Amino acid sequence: MTLPPALAAQVRFDERGLVPAIVQDAHTGQVLMLAYMNAAALAATLRTGEAHFWSRSRGQLWHKGATSGHTQRVVEIRVDCDGDALLLRVEPRGPACHTGANACFYRAYDPAADRWRGLTYAPEEAA
Amino acid sequence: MTLPPALAAQVRFDERGLVPAIVQDAHTGQVLMLAYMNAAALAATLRTGEAHFWSRSRGQLWHKGATSGHTQRVVEIRVDCDGDALLLRVEPRGPACHTGANACFYRAYDPAADRWRGLTYAPEEAA
Repeated sequence: MTLPPALAAQVRFDERGLVPAIVQDAHTGQVLMLAYMNAAALAATLRTGEAHFWSRSRGQLWHKGATSGHTQRVVEIRVDCDGDALLLRVEPRGPACHTGANACFYRAYDPAADRWRGLTYAPEEAA
Repeated sequence: MTLPPALAAQVRFDERGLVPAIVQDAHTGQVLMLAYMNAAALAATLRTGEAHFWSRSRGQLWHKGATSGHTQRVVEIRVDCDGDALLLRVEPRGPACHTGANACFYRAYDPAADRWRGLTYAPEEAA
């Protein structure tokens, strides 16, 4: 489960051993979800080419889509300037969200009315 | 600094009082940065229409761009399915990254060579 040296040198895991990973559709640009990776999840992602995370609620390695079939093929892994966040650009095989929505961010806040409205992701909105 | 009820009801701050906020260019879809908000930062963002965060390194409220002039006008705030991540869709007035890069995610990992390569954001890549 050791990471390749150049990868390990740039990714800064926090005190829990986790780094947040933004998941973005590589083709539409839609932000699909935010999840967390530990070193084992990052290693498994590299080894398989499919997104793996650390499930904080279940306390275990999580192969995204292992149950639902909605896996995510990882096209590219980016790191931010100070190494404490990752951006995974993926090709999703199905909805990212357990609710069945394409993306977990399906509610937008309306500050004038103090209410949330549901989003349907038209292609132009997802850009 | 109290948040409107419907907003407060859906956003789950962690044990540090923070929620991660993905910042995305509302027009190009480019993921610009990941930062953290506390209730005060979220309230200040609503009040001003410009992105405010909590700087974990400085331990203070951070009006993005207050020094550099590279503020971010917030077009939309989205929340994820379980309320523990936000997505800010913004119009950036200048580069998001303190390095001068458009986005903080300017390095991509090449697993075959175990090296990082710098990205220049062509419009089609940022989609």
